[in-house]
Amino acid sequence: MTSKQADNVTMSGGGVYSLATRGAKDVIDAATPRVLEAVNQLGLSPASERFTMADMGCADGGTSLDMVRGVLGRVRELSPAVQSTVIYADQPGNDYNALVGILHGRTRFHSWLGEIEQAWPVFSGSSFYLQCVPDGMLDLAFSATAMHWLSTLPCNITGHVHMVGATDGEAETFANQGRRDWESILMLRARELRPGGRMVLVNFCRDESGRYLGNTGGVNMFDTFNRIWQSFLADGRIREDEYHRMTLPQYYRTMEEFSEPLVDPDSACHRAGLRLDSIETRVVPCPYAEQFRRDGDVGTFADGLIPTVRSWNQSIFAAGLDPARPAEERAGLIEEFYGAYHRLVLDDPRGHGMDYVHAHMTISRV
Amino acid sequence: MTSKQADNVTMSGGGVYSLATRGAKDVIDAATPRVLEAVNQLGLSPASERFTMADMGCADGGTSLDMVRGVLGRVRELSPAVQSTVIYADQPGNDYNALVGILHGRTRFHSWLGEIEQAWPVFSGSSFYLQCVPDGMLDLAFSATAMHWLSTLPCNITGHVHMVGATDGEAETFANQGRRDWESILMLRARELRPGGRMVLVNFCRDESGRYLGNTGGVNMFDTFNRIWQSFLADGRIREDEYHRMTLPQYYRTMEEFSEPLVDPDSACHRAGLRLDSIETRVVPCPYAEQFRRDGDVGTFADGLIPTVRSWNQSIFAAGLDPARPAEERAGLIEEFYGAYHRLVLDDPRGHGMDYVHAHMTISRV
Repeated sequence: MTSKQADNVTMSGGGVYSLATRGAKDVIDAATPRVLEAVNQLGLSPASERFTMADMGCADGGTSLDMVRGVLGRVRELSPAVQSTVIYADQPGNDYNALVGILHGRTRFHSWLGEIEQAWPVFSGSSFYLQCVPDGMLDLAFSATAMHWLSTLPCNITGHVHMVGATDGEAETFANQGRRDWESILMLRARELRPGGRMVLVNFCRDESGRYLGNTGGVNMFDTFNRIWQSFLADGRIREDEYHRMTLPQYYRTMEEFSEPLVDPDSACHRAGLRLDSIETRVVPCPYAEQFRRDGDVGTFADGLIPTVRSWNQSIFAAGLDPARPAEERAGLIEEFYGAYHRLVLDDPRGHGMDYVHAHMTISRV
Repeated sequence: MTSKQADNVTMSGGGVYSLATRGAKDVIDAATPRVLEAVNQLGLSPASERFTMADMGCADGGTSLDMVRGVLGRVRELSPAVQSTVIYADQPGNDYNALVGILHGRTRFHSWLGEIEQAWPVFSGSSFYLQCVPDGMLDLAFSATAMHWLSTLPCNITGHVHMVGATDGEAETFANQGRRDWESILMLRARELRPGGRMVLVNFCRDESGRYLGNTGGVNMFDTFNRIWQSFLADGRIREDEYHRMTLPQYYRTMEEFSEPLVDPDSACHRAGLRLDSIETRVVPCPYAEQFRRDGDVGTFADGLIPTVRSWNQSIFAAGLDPARPAEERAGLIEEFYGAYHRLVLDDPRGHGMDYVHAHMTISRV
C-alpha cells in the first residue's frame, strides 16, 4: 500500500507552497460556503459526539486553515459536545514537517489548533489513490486543487507539455486515464464516507467555455510553457527526448466527465452510493494579475506569478531532464526556464496570469 | 494546544534515531509479549469492526515496527473483519518526514504497511503532555523510552547534569516535577482510553537495586557525561553558566513512584478509572557492549556506543552552550565532547556501555 502517484510530483516544501499560492487559498475560501452548507446537511445533532473530516491532497495545510476553522466552528454550533478529528492526507513524499509545523502553530500561519476546543489534527501519508481511513469513518471529505494529478503518466505528448495541447490518440489516452483515475478516487471515498456523509471536491476543470487554469482569454499559460521548452530545444539547450519527457501527468476534466459516474445509475460509483448533489464552475482570478491591474507594477507581477507557477511544475520539468546531466546543469536549465518566463512577462505583461478555473462539487453518500 | 515539552528536546531525525538505537528496539521487542497479552484482554471478538492503538513518543517509528506488526496480526486473528488505525504521536518538532517515510516503505526499514491488510497509520504532532485523540478512541496505548522527558526543566542541577546526581532540595524539586508530570500523563490517557482499554508503558526507571540507564555495575554513564563537561569547564573550554545549563530535563522514576497514583484509591488517576495490572523491571543489555564482549573490537564498540548516546542528549547539551558563541564554535564543542567520550572508551573500554533499565507496566482503564 504505497502511493501510486508518480514519485516526481511534489509540491514545494518548507511551507513555501502556501506562501507561493495565495490563489489556491482564494479558491478554498470561495468554496467554503459550499463546505459549510454540506456540514449543515450531515444530520449532526446536539447529541452528536464525534465528527471526522479529511483534507485530501493537503500539501502543507496552510491554504485550508480558515476553511477548516469555519467547519469546526459550525460543527460545534450544531453539536456543542462534539470532539472532532481532522485528517490531513497527502502522498508520502509530501513535506510533513512543514504540515505539522503549520498546524501546530510553529509558523506565521494562523492555525485553528488551540483556538477550536476539542479538535485534533492527524496526518496521513496515504494519497487519494489509496483508502486513507477505515470504512465509514468520515463525515466529510474535502479536496482542493489536487485530483488533476493522474496516478500515472499514460503517455508522453507529442509537441506539447500538457493534455490541453494533446490531439487524437494521445488526447484519448489521457481521457481514458482521467476517467479510470476519477472512478478509483470516487470508489475509495465511497468506502471512507459514512452513509449520509458528504464530499466537497474543488478540482481544476475545463469549463463550459473551454477555459482552464491559465487560459481564460489572455495568453495560454501551457502554450507559454511549451513555447519556452521548444525554444530551448531549437537552441540545443535540451534534447528531443528531454522535451518529450516534459509531459505533465495531469488531466483537466470537463463537467460531463466529473458528473458521469455519479449520475449514471449503472456506474459502479452510483451503485456504491455516491450521488452528485450539485456542480458548478468558478473562476478565481490570478491574485498577481489582479494586483498588476491595480498598481501597474510589472516587476512585482512577474516576481509573484513565476513562483506560483513554479511551485507545482518544477519537479516534473526537472525530472524530464536527462539524469546523466550534472545536477547543477539541470538546476541551471530549470532556472533558465523560469527566467525566460519571467522575461516574457516583463517584456509584455498583457494577458499573462494564472486564473484558476475549478469545478466545485458536492457529493453525498447515501 | 501546543507542545509543553521543552523545545530543545529532539531525537535525531532523518531515520538516524532508529538506526542508532538498536537497543531501543531490543527493549520494545522484549515488551512485545506483554503488549500481546494486553491485546488478548481487550475483549475483542470475531464481530469487532475497529481497533485503534497509539504509539506515543514514537520518534521515527522504526523501533516499534515489529511490535505493531505483531499487535495488528494478533488483532486480526481475534477479529478477522477488523479495520485498524495506528496513531504515531510525538511532539511537533519530531522529524515527521522520516516517520512517514519509514511507515510508507520508503526506507530500508521493513514496514508493516502493505503487509497487514485493512490497517492504516496516521501521525499526530501532540505530545503525551496533551490529549492526542478524542475521548475513548483508543483500545491500546503504547509508549517506550519516552516518558522520562519532563514537561519542563524544574531547576538546573548543581555539580551534575542529570537528576541521578542531584541531592537535597534539587533532588526533591525533580521528584515533584516527575510526580506532577506522571499524573498529567496518566490523566490524559484516562480520557483517551475506552473503558476496558489497556496501556503498556515501558519507561526508564531506577530499579529495586538502584540500577538505571548506563548504570548497572560498570562505569556510570551520567557520571561520565558530568566528568567530561567538568573537565571542559576546568580547561576553560566552557563557562560555569554553560555547565550549569547542561542539566537534562529527565526524571527516572522508581517502582513506587510509577505505581502510587494507580494503586492509591484516593488518587485522581485511580478515580479516573486507571488500575495497575502489573509492573516489572527489566534490563536489556547494551548491544554494543555485548558485541564487544563477543568480538573484543574496541573501535567498533566506541563507534556504536557514542552515536546511540548522542542521539538523545546532543540537542540538550548543545542548547546549554551560550547562543552568543558562533554556531561553528558550538558545533565544535559538541564534537569535542563526544570525541572525548569516544577516547575514554578506546583507552579503557571496561565497564562502559548503556544497558537499558526499564519499568514495564500494564495499566487498564475500567
